[in-house]
Amino acid sequence: MLGNFSYHNPTKLYFGEDSLNYLKDELKKYGENVLLVYGGGSIKKNGLYDEITAILKECGKNVAEVPGVMPNPTSDKLNEGVEIARKNKSDFILAVGGGSVCDYSKAVSVSVHCNDDPWEKYFIRFEEPDCKILPVGCVLTMAGTGSEMNGGSVITNHKCKLKIGHVFGEEVMPRFSILNPRYTMTLPKYQMCAGIFDIMSHICEQYFSGEDDNTSDYISEGLMRGLIHSSRIAVKDPKNYEARSNIMWTATWALNTLVSKGKTEDWMVHMLGQAVGAYTDATHGMTLAAVSLPYYRHIMQYGLKKFARFAVEVWGVSPTGKTDEQIANEGLAAMESWMKEIELVMTISELGASDDMIEGIADATTILKGGYKVLSRDEVIKILKESM
Amino acid sequence: MLGNFSYHNPTKLYFGEDSLNYLKDELKKYGENVLLVYGGGSIKKNGLYDEITAILKECGKNVAEVPGVMPNPTSDKLNEGVEIARKNKSDFILAVGGGSVCDYSKAVSVSVHCNDDPWEKYFIRFEEPDCKILPVGCVLTMAGTGSEMNGGSVITNHKCKLKIGHVFGEEVMPRFSILNPRYTMTLPKYQMCAGIFDIMSHICEQYFSGEDDNTSDYISEGLMRGLIHSSRIAVKDPKNYEARSNIMWTATWALNTLVSKGKTEDWMVHMLGQAVGAYTDATHGMTLAAVSLPYYRHIMQYGLKKFARFAVEVWGVSPTGKTDEQIANEGLAAMESWMKEIELVMTISELGASDDMIEGIADATTILKGGYKVLSRDEVIKILKESM
Repeated sequence: MLGNFSYHNPTKLYFGEDSLNYLKDELKKYGENVLLVYGGGSIKKNGLYDEITAILKECGKNVAEVPGVMPNPTSDKLNEGVEIARKNKSDFILAVGGGSVCDYSKAVSVSVHCNDDPWEKYFIRFEEPDCKILPVGCVLTMAGTGSEMNGGSVITNHKCKLKIGHVFGEEVMPRFSILNPRYTMTLPKYQMCAGIFDIMSHICEQYFSGEDDNTSDYISEGLMRGLIHSSRIAVKDPKNYEARSNIMWTATWALNTLVSKGKTEDWMVHMLGQAVGAYTDATHGMTLAAVSLPYYRHIMQYGLKKFARFAVEVWGVSPTGKTDEQIANEGLAAMESWMKEIELVMTISELGASDDMIEGIADATTILKGGYKVLSRDEVIKILKESM
Repeated sequence: MLGNFSYHNPTKLYFGEDSLNYLKDELKKYGENVLLVYGGGSIKKNGLYDEITAILKECGKNVAEVPGVMPNPTSDKLNEGVEIARKNKSDFILAVGGGSVCDYSKAVSVSVHCNDDPWEKYFIRFEEPDCKILPVGCVLTMAGTGSEMNGGSVITNHKCKLKIGHVFGEEVMPRFSILNPRYTMTLPKYQMCAGIFDIMSHICEQYFSGEDDNTSDYISEGLMRGLIHSSRIAVKDPKNYEARSNIMWTATWALNTLVSKGKTEDWMVHMLGQAVGAYTDATHGMTLAAVSLPYYRHIMQYGLKKFARFAVEVWGVSPTGKTDEQIANEGLAAMESWMKEIELVMTISELGASDDMIEGIADATTILKGGYKVLSRDEVIKILKESM
């Protein structure tokens, strides 16, 4: 049931090969001190850095840079960015990169004018911002996280071995995001596939929860079917622009709150995956892939009707003459087949997890209550062992 | 293909039985002179008028009223509302009603500070507003048009026998809309079913166009499947809150630009239906129902693959051993069956159209170019005759 909720997603999206043309129109709306945030060297290799710095210069902006935002951005890096923003009196943050860079920029945006330690305030105490928030804009170079149109920010603290996400409100959502599928096409295939699974997982985290009947589930099924279709094309032909553009657009809509309306939401695959990530620093989407099937096979019986529906509506499993359990199992088998087809990592050992890490990963796994079964610590251990 | 586009939908939506509680928070953001716009007497009978006027009073607003906005709002009525807004120096327009009231309020919002004749400027010349635009908020009492989250406004000019829609930009979209499914449950079943078909038609107008492959189509298929499911419950049990809430939410997403991305869009069913409406003043959704099958059967051959996909994905038609034409025909037959199940009017004669009107209705039908076949006037006549 949809129940009571609000929906507000003020981010303006520019999509397509011409989308960067709109950056200057957007930049005009903000002050002259821009904090340019990016990751490793890829945007310097593919020319995007030069294009963007030229546009910033043309707009008369004073640019301070925060390069080197790593794939799982850390609290130390966050503090570094906050200091640079303060020193340069940044008016606006331009994030150029994937979900990590966008997430990171949102964390900086709520921390610059905040007196408390941001890791403690936002990622341990989960407080909301009570200070001035800097506006953020994104030029997205990788499809998957949905960070370009949501209030989410995930930060890793290596000392505590924690990787924590905070979903901020609409005032922290990017003011605009530029989505050019061509930018996603320079990334390695490994990242493309990890991003594809992140998208699927986002949808599943919302879909496999709560009580049906709900429009959100029908939209989710549509998104998943489109994603499976486009991913099959993309894994064979990563340069297929149509497939990559559909994947990019699906990523945005998978996690901008739309398909969560009326859902209690699960998020345990992400809790497990993030905990694995805190220990191994592995690629986010791959950590999710490695834990998903053991998790879903474990909880399937508690949400049997939904897993049977998933099998029929998303994977085309024929229900005729079968029990719900048979149908549901076939659905997960079809998903497993697809996951291998798109070359995902299927075990956490392959990502660097070792047996002696399991207890620690279990400790780092937050237990959430929105899914079909609230896990005990023993169940977490069992699932992690099955994920090895 | 998705191609190049922008997406910006800043309307804040409050959904559910508690949604009216947020009206006062929103009203605080606007000036003290409020133009309260509504339709016939229904909101006075069901208590909503009293609730809203109490809230407006509590917020210290000066209220000027524009009652009596008819189901197909006219240009004369538009001029009347503009005068009242000017006289009362309205700061904000609160629309309480269905799509007609919301559409109408948007037309007023772009006309109050405009020197030209609004019908000529916006609905004949299709110019964009170059004047101050009054902010609009909606409290929706009928699900169907999507007006609560888009820039559309449809006005009828009886003298010219024209019913014309203008899709304005994001600055004309309502600032907020309050969507309480309970409000939709006091309307007669006829209106409920007409609204349901309006939603289906909106999705079809976008879906049956352009070149596949496109995420928008997958989302559309999800929305259509959910709508068919909920409508079957609602027609038997209009008081089923879950079904009515899913229908209301689907209506919003069917026409807020999301599922039009990458589509050329058809809109001929609406052009034909609006022309019928200009002559008969019939309920919008019923005019669409009466012309849809003759139109789709006529253009089916020009978009055969899509009509076959529609049959399989939306209506569950089995494709095994059949030609595309057979599959497509079965899909339209399934849709016809459903239309009768939800008690739609299936002929324009039942809506008051007579043979001698056909030429005039054809004259009033704008020919658009986004569908699978650009119609000649002869084809329009043929379709209208088949709709009798």
